[in-house]
Amino acid sequence: MENYQISLDAAFHALADPTRRAVLSRLTKGPASVKELAEPFDMGLPSFMKHLRVLESDGLIHSQKVGRVRTCRINAEKLAAAEAWLSEQRKHWQAQTDRLAGYVELEMIGRSEDGN
Amino acid sequence: MENYQISLDAAFHALADPTRRAVLSRLTKGPASVKELAEPFDMGLPSFMKHLRVLESDGLIHSQKVGRVRTCRINAEKLAAAEAWLSEQRKHWQAQTDRLAGYVELEMIGRSEDGN
Repeated sequence: MENYQISLDAAFHALADPTRRAVLSRLTKGPASVKELAEPFDMGLPSFMKHLRVLESDGLIHSQKVGRVRTCRINAEKLAAAEAWLSEQRKHWQAQTDRLAGYVELEMIGRSEDGN
Repeated sequence: MENYQISLDAAFHALADPTRRAVLSRLTKGPASVKELAEPFDMGLPSFMKHLRVLESDGLIHSQKVGRVRTCRINAEKLAAAEAWLSEQRKHWQAQTDRLAGYVELEMIGRSEDGN
């Protein structure tokens, strides 16, 4: 349970930055080299590498160096765990709003019957 | 677009902490007072209030004080936006893995036909 919480902390932390989210979006379409990933960003390579290191240490991507090229791949399981947590919350929230709507409806039926 | 990115930064930042996630989980089941929310945590009230302030400034909860009681409510739209972003990424990822699976299948059919 504690590991699960630490893993979610890391996933959400990594996601709280637009550059890191853009890199993840790119990697959902397939692996890419660091050079390809850095290209769309108006950012020095050292700053960009910091974001990649956060993504890798938070477990959202893997990278492997072959010769002079480092290739990055997404770890989709981590994204799936974050999505599953949010989806679980939505279910609770919807169940609660459905109960509330049901209650309001019953109240309105009650009032309309009182009025007859 | 920039506002959307800032809003996602804030949502994911708020979610990157187990206390804040637990508070959000509780609030999906209905509004609660600060006292009720703080009760399950082995944490001083000032530290707990810091988490509530992060949740409120990041837009994941609203709070209102009536008399001496401050009541918190979830802002489900923010959670929904974060979930929608993750769900979008999953779609790209699945499309990519489906294409890959299709390619492997074609390769295997090709090889088995070569073998006949």
